[in-house]
Amino acid sequence: MCGIVGIVDAGGASIKLYYSLYALQHRGQESAGISTFDGTNLHKFKGAGLVADVFSPPVLSDLKGDAGIGHVRYPTTGANLPENIQPLNFQFREHSISVAHNGNLVNTAELRSGFEQAGQIFTTTTDTEIIAKILMDEISTFGSVEEAVKVCMQKIRGSYSVVMMIGGIIYAFRDPLGIKPFCIGKTERGYMVASESVAIDALNAKLLRDVHPGELIRIDSEGVKGTRIAVPGKRAHCIFEYVYFARADSIIDGVLVYDVRRRIGQDLFKEDPVKADSVCSVPDSGTAYAIGYAEGSKIPFVESLMKNRYMGRTFIMPSQKEREKAVRIKLNPIPAHLKDKSVVLVDDSIVRGTTSKRIIELMREAGAREIHMRIGSPAIKAPCYLGVDMPTREELIASNREEDEVRHKITATTLRHVSLDSLVEAIGIDREDLCTGCLTGCYPLAIEGERAKTHEIDFIDATYQAKLGSFEEPDPFSF
Amino acid sequence: MCGIVGIVDAGGASIKLYYSLYALQHRGQESAGISTFDGTNLHKFKGAGLVADVFSPPVLSDLKGDAGIGHVRYPTTGANLPENIQPLNFQFREHSISVAHNGNLVNTAELRSGFEQAGQIFTTTTDTEIIAKILMDEISTFGSVEEAVKVCMQKIRGSYSVVMMIGGIIYAFRDPLGIKPFCIGKTERGYMVASESVAIDALNAKLLRDVHPGELIRIDSEGVKGTRIAVPGKRAHCIFEYVYFARADSIIDGVLVYDVRRRIGQDLFKEDPVKADSVCSVPDSGTAYAIGYAEGSKIPFVESLMKNRYMGRTFIMPSQKEREKAVRIKLNPIPAHLKDKSVVLVDDSIVRGTTSKRIIELMREAGAREIHMRIGSPAIKAPCYLGVDMPTREELIASNREEDEVRHKITATTLRHVSLDSLVEAIGIDREDLCTGCLTGCYPLAIEGERAKTHEIDFIDATYQAKLGSFEEPDPFSF
Amino acid sequence: MCGIVGIVDAGGASIKLYYSLYALQHRGQESAGISTFDGTNLHKFKGAGLVADVFSPPVLSDLKGDAGIGHVRYPTTGANLPENIQPLNFQFREHSISVAHNGNLVNTAELRSGFEQAGQIFTTTTDTEIIAKILMDEISTFGSVEEAVKVCMQKIRGSYSVVMMIGGIIYAFRDPLGIKPFCIGKTERGYMVASESVAIDALNAKLLRDVHPGELIRIDSEGVKGTRIAVPGKRAHCIFEYVYFARADSIIDGVLVYDVRRRIGQDLFKEDPVKADSVCSVPDSGTAYAIGYAEGSKIPFVESLMKNRYMGRTFIMPSQKEREKAVRIKLNPIPAHLKDKSVVLVDDSIVRGTTSKRIIELMREAGAREIHMRIGSPAIKAPCYLGVDMPTREELIASNREEDEVRHKITATTLRHVSLDSLVEAIGIDREDLCTGCLTGCYPLAIEGERAKTHEIDFIDATYQAKLGSFEEPDPFSF
Amino acid sequence: MCGIVGIVDAGGASIKLYYSLYALQHRGQESAGISTFDGTNLHKFKGAGLVADVFSPPVLSDLKGDAGIGHVRYPTTGANLPENIQPLNFQFREHSISVAHNGNLVNTAELRSGFEQAGQIFTTTTDTEIIAKILMDEISTFGSVEEAVKVCMQKIRGSYSVVMMIGGIIYAFRDPLGIKPFCIGKTERGYMVASESVAIDALNAKLLRDVHPGELIRIDSEGVKGTRIAVPGKRAHCIFEYVYFARADSIIDGVLVYDVRRRIGQDLFKEDPVKADSVCSVPDSGTAYAIGYAEGSKIPFVESLMKNRYMGRTFIMPSQKEREKAVRIKLNPIPAHLKDKSVVLVDDSIVRGTTSKRIIELMREAGAREIHMRIGSPAIKAPCYLGVDMPTREELIASNREEDEVRHKITATTLRHVSLDSLVEAIGIDREDLCTGCLTGCYPLAIEGERAKTHEIDFIDATYQAKLGSFEEPDPFSF
Repeated sequence: MCGIVGIVDAGGASIKLYYSLYALQHRGQESAGISTFDGTNLHKFKGAGLVADVFSPPVLSDLKGDAGIGHVRYPTTGANLPENIQPLNFQFREHSISVAHNGNLVNTAELRSGFEQAGQIFTTTTDTEIIAKILMDEISTFGSVEEAVKVCMQKIRGSYSVVMMIGGIIYAFRDPLGIKPFCIGKTERGYMVASESVAIDALNAKLLRDVHPGELIRIDSEGVKGTRIAVPGKRAHCIFEYVYFARADSIIDGVLVYDVRRRIGQDLFKEDPVKADSVCSVPDSGTAYAIGYAEGSKIPFVESLMKNRYMGRTFIMPSQKEREKAVRIKLNPIPAHLKDKSVVLVDDSIVRGTTSKRIIELMREAGAREIHMRIGSPAIKAPCYLGVDMPTREELIASNREEDEVRHKITATTLRHVSLDSLVEAIGIDREDLCTGCLTGCYPLAIEGERAKTHEIDFIDATYQAKLGSFEEPDPFSF
Repeated sequence: MCGIVGIVDAGGASIKLYYSLYALQHRGQESAGISTFDGTNLHKFKGAGLVADVFSPPVLSDLKGDAGIGHVRYPTTGANLPENIQPLNFQFREHSISVAHNGNLVNTAELRSGFEQAGQIFTTTTDTEIIAKILMDEISTFGSVEEAVKVCMQKIRGSYSVVMMIGGIIYAFRDPLGIKPFCIGKTERGYMVASESVAIDALNAKLLRDVHPGELIRIDSEGVKGTRIAVPGKRAHCIFEYVYFARADSIIDGVLVYDVRRRIGQDLFKEDPVKADSVCSVPDSGTAYAIGYAEGSKIPFVESLMKNRYMGRTFIMPSQKEREKAVRIKLNPIPAHLKDKSVVLVDDSIVRGTTSKRIIELMREAGAREIHMRIGSPAIKAPCYLGVDMPTREELIASNREEDEVRHKITATTLRHVSLDSLVEAIGIDREDLCTGCLTGCYPLAIEGERAKTHEIDFIDATYQAKLGSFEEPDPFSF
Repeated sequence: MCGIVGIVDAGGASIKLYYSLYALQHRGQESAGISTFDGTNLHKFKGAGLVADVFSPPVLSDLKGDAGIGHVRYPTTGANLPENIQPLNFQFREHSISVAHNGNLVNTAELRSGFEQAGQIFTTTTDTEIIAKILMDEISTFGSVEEAVKVCMQKIRGSYSVVMMIGGIIYAFRDPLGIKPFCIGKTERGYMVASESVAIDALNAKLLRDVHPGELIRIDSEGVKGTRIAVPGKRAHCIFEYVYFARADSIIDGVLVYDVRRRIGQDLFKEDPVKADSVCSVPDSGTAYAIGYAEGSKIPFVESLMKNRYMGRTFIMPSQKEREKAVRIKLNPIPAHLKDKSVVLVDDSIVRGTTSKRIIELMREAGAREIHMRIGSPAIKAPCYLGVDMPTREELIASNREEDEVRHKITATTLRHVSLDSLVEAIGIDREDLCTGCLTGCYPLAIEGERAKTHEIDFIDATYQAKLGSFEEPDPFSF
Repeated sequence: MCGIVGIVDAGGASIKLYYSLYALQHRGQESAGISTFDGTNLHKFKGAGLVADVFSPPVLSDLKGDAGIGHVRYPTTGANLPENIQPLNFQFREHSISVAHNGNLVNTAELRSGFEQAGQIFTTTTDTEIIAKILMDEISTFGSVEEAVKVCMQKIRGSYSVVMMIGGIIYAFRDPLGIKPFCIGKTERGYMVASESVAIDALNAKLLRDVHPGELIRIDSEGVKGTRIAVPGKRAHCIFEYVYFARADSIIDGVLVYDVRRRIGQDLFKEDPVKADSVCSVPDSGTAYAIGYAEGSKIPFVESLMKNRYMGRTFIMPSQKEREKAVRIKLNPIPAHLKDKSVVLVDDSIVRGTTSKRIIELMREAGAREIHMRIGSPAIKAPCYLGVDMPTREELIASNREEDEVRHKITATTLRHVSLDSLVEAIGIDREDLCTGCLTGCYPLAIEGERAKTHEIDFIDATYQAKLGSFEEPDPFSF
């Protein structure tokens, strides 16, 4: 999981990319990078760490130019190599090219091997480099970015929101199933694309709409243009973006994430009402759900676990045998709110179950009598291959356990996950248009060793497309 | 404002000091330091930045020994010098001495000048160095730490919680008025003192009680001992610790801070009921108040300003003319929760008024119809000389303005501060035992150019004290 | 100009590469890098700065494995980009590949463009990446490194000593003209190649011989093998390595550099005897020459310019208008050795002439009466395209000036360069086997816009080569 | 051993201090510091490492003001603490004070204890802090710096060249025996003092004269003034400054160090002529001696050990069992100059003998037939208590061994030290005016457990001094 941004704005790109990436920081804290183009030269800077640590004022002022792209990276096992930090920057003919990617391909090995047969070498272990190679290869064949993106979409399989800068032009495209979020904004003197709308808000810019699945967006100093490259029979928006990954104040595919979570909170009560003295959340992931629960149940919302706000990436964890202390250092229970109380504890999801177990233990030590755990997602039964860094089936506590077995493991008094039906209704998108792979084990595209109900994709003929025009939304782009 | 800790624990001090300081990080983000003693040598490390940035695992493992003290420092104008980072470390005869201090003296100039007349030199601009010099001077005269602390308390005027390590013994004392918080805890294999109880919680240790005003605590590997050096007629606990400074989950002088704030939230509604669609807070300072308000008013609590959790100290602020953007980057309003709504906005206090004004503007841009601002403290009328870094009267928006003038300035629909009576009642400590200098302009000790209602202090005769014994709480210290 | 090393030694590679690179530090101070292979994984580390600054003990111990290559890089205008730091590391099929290069290609643009036509992208601006791409391309066609290197040698034009690691095998090859130095050594438990013999000395290893022009060396854990890929009609060893670039204690193509310089010093006196009180050098570049001059002339060698030994890369130079001070800070004249004296001042070469002029001025200020400048190389008339970072003709003081005009410019009493004949004789290699491009403007290979007397190269047929065997020196490789 | 500088120059102090300290870098590589005063504020910066690493352009431009002092520190066992980095900076009354010191006191413990009895605390373990405390104490008593320095000189015993800045005035004084060097220079728009004349040369300033033993120099924006505080019967200039410590191009107490060393080289041949093929030195310490030897003997000087010029403080030394490699990495022998040769090897001194032994072994491995070692100082028999960091008697190879035993230990063919008579004559200062403690075991001042022939010192009466005037050299100070 990562966050990406691209912008062309007459007032300069770098500080705007900085603020946008900062707004997307929750999508990746491992590294950050920005590339800009000033009409003549590519400028670039990237490093390990948070946006605010990687960039300094002199660095930003060296990143000259009105066009640029940026990336924040989520830590993923085995990929933490300096050369993998994005955007990747290349030379191709006379052009400087930068590419950044959010998502995950599932046919990487096969694509990579094809290039290697042809004698090509790789400098990173990223999917992004494969995407870049395909694009450059096809651009050199067809001479058209549109055709190249079409061939690329036909070759690669997986989730991908990609932003690419060639010279001063930003190209952005989203996979035909629209798995990862991607949206378009109007800035004061230009346009931008970003993983989530909060990056657009951060610039006081205007959210225009989402990038359509299978669409290619082109931004230059003249304006913005959308071209539909592929049209899916059904979409496959990631359900976990709503549940956990996206910021609560983002609007994804037309839906405010916060309200999805609040509605789920209300549903959690409706689906299995419980009597309790107070509702509390695991901060911050469970808070919107808990507030919804309190609203729906009329049980007062009382903060009973205080989160230390200064937890940095350099924080020293205690030794293995003292692990349970770590939770206490991050989350301090308030005995006065727990002693002899029956409490509803709300969180967004349970993955391995270890953290939930430790939190419940902490609350019991602080005197809680009953702990009714309520979870804002159905039980996670299967891994994700499409960009969410989830563990294997073996590590997923619910992959082969019933809800009550999980309850027993985490030592809760009761445990309820929201139903998939309620979740889908809360999101408000047709169930067929959502990827529920991690909940059902059935994926929207072919993955080796897994069940899939693949969605058909129509690739649009370039000539035909030229006639259409209608794919270029007349309205939002006609300012 | 700063945070201090001292510990003697047979399992080693440094990692425990690290976690404790981390729990006190809200009391100071400018610098952090730890000194330990291993029976033979003093070990010390300090640096600018957050606890998690200053200390690394090798540094902590070099800080050997079972005894140690730590400090986090709040940024204060003009004092950001490397040599001022605490604990201060000295050599005195064959002893290594470390001292750390939370508070502020008001007769510094006079004390300093006395030493300089006698040819002494200063290496820092801290009050802490003055305190250390007085103590060493008197110890060399009397040979007794108790006597030295007594003379010191007679000489210095102001707020001070001090922790000092001489060899492997920790001495801790709190000013006779008990202005700054200071408490004692029982760790697994030793004892500790800390500015707030959350530092004790972080070690899964047990809060014993507060350090009494005017009391000297001594911790060594044998145990803990309390000696009453001075007894005030009335105390003067800082009211602002409850309102703003302390962590909500701390228990100060017997009172859980969170509940003080929640009660105030309820009072804010009771004192002037208003009709509105929702209650929201300025996160995180106003949240406990807002939850209390929602409880009291039955108006739903809805988060409408989302805080970016990654704001680091190195974050680059936009240029002066783009300042209003900064608020937006930190706090993103959710239009869906604000558009055409009447909203109660709750915060803990208004100092200069500039931030409140910008937040209200943001909410109006997002479409809010009415914004009823409610403040968890009475209007701040006067500066603080006793350790809270507050601006001058000129900069305090309320120092010479009525509530309605302030409301007009910050463009709120309505504005109410909680009454001093309600605040005192919510805290539950006698009004005479609280310092309300910033609210009333009347201070508990003599400050040049200000009104004061000074509290009398009895210094206890050493002989008499020896007889007493009762000052050494028989119960908690008799493990 | 750069320095390269490759090694396979059963005792581990990294610390040996570290010492070897350190011995080659004079060949490049801008950056340093090491890649190693442990049988399974590639380990790599590189950074800007000196070898001793880039590598730390933990870094070296993470560079596991018995095989490895290293590189130090000379600062070259416009190429100071982090991604250009060598060795370059690639993924090719299942292999990890590292490549490092000393030299300069003259048909880069053409080669690069060929790849780009085919849709390939570049991640650096180095010749090294081009060489790597050609090699991988050909290896994937022929399946043989020997064939690939042959095709590569046929395609690329310029100077190149290349070391490449594929899995745990080190391949090293030198261009068919042998422009840059490259030699082979026997370590305690393996073999190595390095730019200069001092890198072999540093490991207390044994210099076996030079890599032949056009030869490919292969080192693995079994031993070393040489294969002749190409044989030149004439060689073209860089004359400037002897004059300036190489360390005085290196043996290049059989010749001890120090003695070349000492003999030139003697010749400088013989070619134009002068009477003087003392001989001094510009330290350290002129010292071996000056000692030779003193021997030849019987004029005493007296150090009269003392060099500050602590000049680091971070040294702050004075502002432009105070430039002359900079020389004084680096070189302090000793008035007692100069006042009213006639002095022979010896240096290796004059490039722009500005430093010589400033030094002579310093000596005059210190009272020198006569300054007879003697130069260990003929006048530099033309630029170098083959790896020595020399300025353009416009900046070369002697490119269009007679010796006496140069003398006048630099304000010397007299000035003499050694003759090309003496220089060639001192080196002891046939004049036809040396590259004298910078002295004559006539180069050993085609360079656009320059005169060339190109050397023919025979590429050896692989079948024929297999029969030969004799190219694999029976003696040195038969341990 | 350390290096110090003080300056008042109308053109700004910091860059000049930087260049001066850089010229004194050989006197200390462990840390560097500068303090300046701009008429109102003290500015200061110091850190571990070389001058060129500690200071950057922005740091230097923040060090505002025309007056300033600087210090470079030599690593000394046990004193490598951040707080010990000089200059030390203090507050005393309204004044900012900075002090830096070169030398070593022998009655530290006693002085320190006196202060501690009086309740004073120490923040460093330096002699410098003791000197500062005495001075401030006395200034507060007498109100006169002259009187304070007189009392200070009466109290402290040892070697000390001290530079102190009070407000914008620089005070500098040298101990009454003149043990450590100290000299005065005229800069373009001001005056300076420095440990060695090379620091004056570095600014293109003019060496005026040495600071007299027992003299106090005062520099302000008006000019310079010298006051004689104490006059010794005999002086005790450190003999080791001439032999080893000072830079060869420095002039100390009127004598050019280089020529002392060259003369000793000549004497080494005269005292015991030997036949050999060549003379070489241990670079760089033995070079001036070797050149003198070659001149005296007519045996050619041939460099046979090449020094790696990039040895930084961060260089990683090989493991203990590979120690001998370390010498080879620093010093590479040239076999072509050594094989079957009889060689004179010249160095300045032998301390522990381990390095000499390893070098001789290296030369033998390279084929040397005979190695005649010649040493520019008499055998070192006793430790130094006065500022040269020398080992104990146990570690000194010659402390209880005859010359031939030492020769045997280091495996030289022959070994000769220069005689003390020749050394004294080469220096040209009366033997009674030199400290030869390390050679004779007899010191010029009382040291516990050692023999001493103490020199009497007259402290000059202030009234008398006022009449004198003659102590203020009329000539050099009357520009």
